[in-house]
Amino acid sequence: MGSAGPKYDPKFTQHVIDATGPKTSPRIREVISSLTRHLHDWAREVDLTADEWMEGVNMINWAGRMSDEKRNEGQLMCDVLGIESLVDEITYKKAAEAADVATQSAILGPFFRHDHPTLPKGANISHDTPSDAEPVYMYGRVTCAKTGKALAGATIDVWQASTNGYYEQQDPNQKDLNLRGKFVTDENGEYGFYCIRPTPYPIPFDGPAGKLLQLLDRHPYRPAHIHLIVLVEGFKPITTQIFDKDSKYLDDDSVFAVKDSLVVEFVPLEGDSTAKKQLQYDVRMAPLDSKAQGTELATSGSINA
Amino acid sequence: MGSAGPKYDPKFTQHVIDATGPKTSPRIREVISSLTRHLHDWAREVDLTADEWMEGVNMINWAGRMSDEKRNEGQLMCDVLGIESLVDEITYKKAAEAADVATQSAILGPFFRHDHPTLPKGANISHDTPSDAEPVYMYGRVTCAKTGKALAGATIDVWQASTNGYYEQQDPNQKDLNLRGKFVTDENGEYGFYCIRPTPYPIPFDGPAGKLLQLLDRHPYRPAHIHLIVLVEGFKPITTQIFDKDSKYLDDDSVFAVKDSLVVEFVPLEGDSTAKKQLQYDVRMAPLDSKAQGTELATSGSINA
Repeated sequence: MGSAGPKYDPKFTQHVIDATGPKTSPRIREVISSLTRHLHDWAREVDLTADEWMEGVNMINWAGRMSDEKRNEGQLMCDVLGIESLVDEITYKKAAEAADVATQSAILGPFFRHDHPTLPKGANISHDTPSDAEPVYMYGRVTCAKTGKALAGATIDVWQASTNGYYEQQDPNQKDLNLRGKFVTDENGEYGFYCIRPTPYPIPFDGPAGKLLQLLDRHPYRPAHIHLIVLVEGFKPITTQIFDKDSKYLDDDSVFAVKDSLVVEFVPLEGDSTAKKQLQYDVRMAPLDSKAQGTELATSGSINA
Repeated sequence: MGSAGPKYDPKFTQHVIDATGPKTSPRIREVISSLTRHLHDWAREVDLTADEWMEGVNMINWAGRMSDEKRNEGQLMCDVLGIESLVDEITYKKAAEAADVATQSAILGPFFRHDHPTLPKGANISHDTPSDAEPVYMYGRVTCAKTGKALAGATIDVWQASTNGYYEQQDPNQKDLNLRGKFVTDENGEYGFYCIRPTPYPIPFDGPAGKLLQLLDRHPYRPAHIHLIVLVEGFKPITTQIFDKDSKYLDDDSVFAVKDSLVVEFVPLEGDSTAKKQLQYDVRMAPLDSKAQGTELATSGSINA
């Protein structure tokens, strides 16, 4: 102590990085070397003690023990630190540059399902609407961002939580495939269906992600949102969430997914026996071969909690 | 792209950090804010995609699922990235500055046990010595680093893996408490016992830590070592490992715990019916109220794999 030298062994991090063997893929080398450097810098910056580090290890192991097909606590811990939202931004920008459609698949998250049938225009995805739910007619038009031309045959895949905060696969009291639907645009590029107005809900609070929120003196709530994936051949896919402009927690989403352009307005609907509110949501798609980006692609957040 | 602006939202990380509530402890705020900043910087630096991030999440969850009282895979993943060795260095330096004995307890690791009795000088801790093991007499003297005075009543707690690479609690074929002992120095500050010459062994390779090593094109071996804790009232405790100078893997320990000062030499022993090799290991302890450090304290690595 007291000497002019560095506080900790200045060669240690490079020694760890140099242990990487020659057969490692260049990408693994890049990602893990950078991770090692940042984690070591962090530990030195805060003088991380062995006790504190072990608390973190225990939380990681706890996350793994709690995770299964219905719940991903490792993902949720990242979400609480903004990491999913950030890698979504990075992935979208990369996809927009490279038109690399395949990289979009991972961000579908735990509540998306592949196995549901296409429903006819005007169907209701709320199979057992709770009494506190507000039925909504959601509709819109899918167009080409470059030409403005209507896109027929586009698929709109939508899913949302019920008013109790659970998606159907988390909740034994909801019917299979409740609040989940796939629609195809007609010859005018139009789609429409009944759903419910989304409501805020807390992310699971009984595991390490909840513990982390508690430690950080933060609440677990997400603002009201609907998940969407829009696909049409020859165009860049869009995976996003849209947020109710009247919802609480727009400014302090527990997983940091809200962006201004994703905020939408539910307005009164007259003369409809099913719904008293409506939501118009138009989607502009970017052609795969263009440098242009779809409105949503350029701005979307696609976190899946 | 192509504009002069930043590639990714420059306000995002601060937004996440600012979500921290007013009731967070100052230390949690410091540690998690810094972690958030470093993880975000890492993701942006390597343009981390959602797919790659999800692979990492899957490894974290896998680590948790594999961990139990006998195995800590989250810890092992950190070890492979040098993090345990680094926080040990940090913890030792902090403890040496503050004489904060309590901070040393966490680095005992999964293979240390509290529940074994003290053995008499000259006892053999190898209860069922395998045929490929080389018996060793280990002995030494514990002194005060300041005065050079012998320290009577110091406890030397020692544990080591068998030649098959397993500690006794990992291995149903070893007797309870095999290769584990606690000794007390006599009036001359001297201790001595029989053990076996340690041998290199691989850290567990069947989980995410092994997967990480594979991805990094690295081997899982640790050089031959013996674990030690030395305690005596009024002196800074020492937790360390000593490494056989003739062992393979001194330069490429899979968990980066080797330091030059921890390398020891096993030499021939004549006229002893139990052991043909001996190891002298003297320990200098730093008084709690001094700024001085014990030889080992200043240089020790105490990783526990």
